[in-house]
Amino acid sequence: MAKEKRVEQITAMETDFAQWFTDVVTKAELIDYSGVKGFFILRPYAFAIWENIQAILDKRFKELGHENVSMPVLIPESLLQKEKDHVEGFAPEVAWVTHGGSEELTERLCVRPTSETLFCEHWSHVLHSWRDLPMLYNQWCSVVRWEKTTRPFLRGREFLWQEGHTLHATAEEAEAETQQMLNVYAELCENYLAMPVIKGRKTEKEKFAGAVATYTIECMMHDKKALQGGTSHYFGDGFARAFDIQFTDKNNTLAYPHQTSWGVSTRIIGGIIMTHGDNNGLVLPPKIAPIQVMVIPIAMHKGGVAEKATELVERLKKAGLRVKSDLSDQSPGWKFAEYEMKGVPLRIEIGPKDIEKGQCIAVRRDNGEKIPVPLTELETRIPELLDAVEKGLYEKAKKNLTENTRPVKSMEEAKAVMAEHGGFIKAMWCGDLACETAMKEEVGVSSRCIPFEQEHIADTCVCCGKPADKMVVWGVAY
Amino acid sequence: MAKEKRVEQITAMETDFAQWFTDVVTKAELIDYSGVKGFFILRPYAFAIWENIQAILDKRFKELGHENVSMPVLIPESLLQKEKDHVEGFAPEVAWVTHGGSEELTERLCVRPTSETLFCEHWSHVLHSWRDLPMLYNQWCSVVRWEKTTRPFLRGREFLWQEGHTLHATAEEAEAETQQMLNVYAELCENYLAMPVIKGRKTEKEKFAGAVATYTIECMMHDKKALQGGTSHYFGDGFARAFDIQFTDKNNTLAYPHQTSWGVSTRIIGGIIMTHGDNNGLVLPPKIAPIQVMVIPIAMHKGGVAEKATELVERLKKAGLRVKSDLSDQSPGWKFAEYEMKGVPLRIEIGPKDIEKGQCIAVRRDNGEKIPVPLTELETRIPELLDAVEKGLYEKAKKNLTENTRPVKSMEEAKAVMAEHGGFIKAMWCGDLACETAMKEEVGVSSRCIPFEQEHIADTCVCCGKPADKMVVWGVAY
Repeated sequence: MAKEKRVEQITAMETDFAQWFTDVVTKAELIDYSGVKGFFILRPYAFAIWENIQAILDKRFKELGHENVSMPVLIPESLLQKEKDHVEGFAPEVAWVTHGGSEELTERLCVRPTSETLFCEHWSHVLHSWRDLPMLYNQWCSVVRWEKTTRPFLRGREFLWQEGHTLHATAEEAEAETQQMLNVYAELCENYLAMPVIKGRKTEKEKFAGAVATYTIECMMHDKKALQGGTSHYFGDGFARAFDIQFTDKNNTLAYPHQTSWGVSTRIIGGIIMTHGDNNGLVLPPKIAPIQVMVIPIAMHKGGVAEKATELVERLKKAGLRVKSDLSDQSPGWKFAEYEMKGVPLRIEIGPKDIEKGQCIAVRRDNGEKIPVPLTELETRIPELLDAVEKGLYEKAKKNLTENTRPVKSMEEAKAVMAEHGGFIKAMWCGDLACETAMKEEVGVSSRCIPFEQEHIADTCVCCGKPADKMVVWGVAY
Repeated sequence: MAKEKRVEQITAMETDFAQWFTDVVTKAELIDYSGVKGFFILRPYAFAIWENIQAILDKRFKELGHENVSMPVLIPESLLQKEKDHVEGFAPEVAWVTHGGSEELTERLCVRPTSETLFCEHWSHVLHSWRDLPMLYNQWCSVVRWEKTTRPFLRGREFLWQEGHTLHATAEEAEAETQQMLNVYAELCENYLAMPVIKGRKTEKEKFAGAVATYTIECMMHDKKALQGGTSHYFGDGFARAFDIQFTDKNNTLAYPHQTSWGVSTRIIGGIIMTHGDNNGLVLPPKIAPIQVMVIPIAMHKGGVAEKATELVERLKKAGLRVKSDLSDQSPGWKFAEYEMKGVPLRIEIGPKDIEKGQCIAVRRDNGEKIPVPLTELETRIPELLDAVEKGLYEKAKKNLTENTRPVKSMEEAKAVMAEHGGFIKAMWCGDLACETAMKEEVGVSSRCIPFEQEHIADTCVCCGKPADKMVVWGVAY
């Protein structure tokens, strides 16, 4: 039935966090479901958030010397199989193309789940000498992984991402690149998305298929579960050997190059929603919000109000902000609810009394605070208030992470803490897979990472009691 | 064998135009071939050209109110089949996914060849009222069409493009959108790519599968063949009826909206190559050239030359140009050839004698002209010279188009002109499919378009001799 769109109530996150999430992504008009399970439509509002994230990352990648390329969407089965660990990780979850037009293909092709194999094949064609190194490539695209359970942003059979792939003359240089790109991701989260992160290395069990080492940034959501914000992988020369990629080094001898890859996906938008959202809907960090300021006229039929609202929009646009007004015939109350649902960081109300007083009222989305702003100070005060929203969001998220990350020394303590509080636990680990598996089976947590910033919680492994010098952060992950 | 990259000779276009094209796309490092026929890798230099084109179009689309979205890469067979003409056009040339992971799918899915059906399904979910219209959407993505013969840029089984899809309350508004977007494409070609175009309407035979009307811009290549630069389609309410998309209009009655779609693809890069390239390689229009100016030091071992080259780069960067220098140990001659191959619009040579004279030498890629430029005037003269290159390219292409488009009045004349000159012919057409087919079979030309700027060549159809009031441009097309 055709009907007017209206702002509807959403499920409270305390009642049902998963339903709250689904309500937010649909009612804030981020997502629509397509006819194929696990394939989600990113509506304009969601895509605009992604474009803002893309712009930040793409600029940074290029400043660091990376170039964008475009690789094929399909990978021949034989190519996917060239690197043993990689194919074991990905082959079970790919979509297979078996027919082109009316012909059956002689070899089936998978829709790319990730593109290491394609980059390697290309490099085997174009790498000749040390002069060609490093090769610093990136690709913005979508990938397909045939997941069993799917959720918008968090686990899709298709998702958008960037995948960086680089090739270096030495292991040291490749390792440095891996770390550098992890830092780029951490800066994205901390400085643009108001999301504090824990940086660290994945265990052998949790690392990427085919990698020597995987580094990660881990974030904590409102429900205290973990979300991986981005990963960066060091491959050594394993793929280079499997794909026979060699170059003539400065001594005129053939050598294998060292390789990295790194990626951030639209999953991070799920992270933004679950880090900052509340029971009125989405809450967007100002730097990536498609609309940073929404101007809403009060008593719009009164002379001069609509004109003044438009004037404020123009002034703030000139000041470099993303700002809109809603001059539709909906009530101010409807508009307040609508743009709260959409997570617009700052609302400006302007009515006849405000005009008389030469002011407008700014309302912060993060804490509801109402701040009268003299119109003469608009261009300085509004950006300051956006910064304040940004800081407010970061501090709230940081508090959530800090207060809900608890040290434990034994399995009993781990179980008790997880049962009572959930969240992350910090515990020493001996490095054995058996102990990692026990943590999963007995406590229900996986290792999130071995943080770069280590703390000494105890002398012995939380599980087996043997000497341990690694502190691991554990949690329940999306 | 690993070896140093070197500048190699390319086939002359007069000898073998197709081989010249292949040589340019590989030796200018635009393309690499993947392991799957018809799937091409866009290397950094090609992708940078595409990014420049994207930036121009994306900005313009947004100025005109369009928003970007992301639709799924896979379409269920049943969805593709909903619009009869559309499925007939596309089903024979799609790639089919039949398995996800290890399971066989209950319904096969095609890799999108175009996304009308996906947009329609989405609109059927989200369109409610006249307040929601127009919906002005665009998507940047790749599409797959299982072509039999393939060539880099010109015909790939996968290509990159943008596809705009819009929905309007009235037919008039949708028609206006179709025309507006065709004009955006014409402006891209004429004002940024130095490619003159003929704007017009496709015949019924040549229109898009499922469209009421298709509009096109047609360009002429060096070999006088036609390349379609972009198309814009008006669909009426045919898809809306097939997909049951309705909205409540201002009179509170249900109505079907009217629809458009429009696209430009990486094929346009093939057009740029074949419009401007020469026997030394690529020639790029300055506005989309990844490197607009390449500074090459002469006698670089002499004191101060490398430093001066770097200084020029910095000054021109500050002036807003995309500029690089090559300070490698290759010879100046090697560098000249390399950046000519890559089509850099302007080369700057700077050597000890130039420094003494307080000048540099600018060399135009389009005509080889060498222009001494006083270093004090660098920031004004270099942009002027880039404009001159742009104009030079446009005028040369315009001359090619004008001189090689000839009026004909009879089939005999058509055959004679095509046999002697090739190029385009302008001829009157009665509107009958039989005459259009005869032109194809007897003269070897297809109708390129019915130009908006009509001329009166004769009173009667070139083929049947019946009265005719439409002038059609005909040619051999890529």
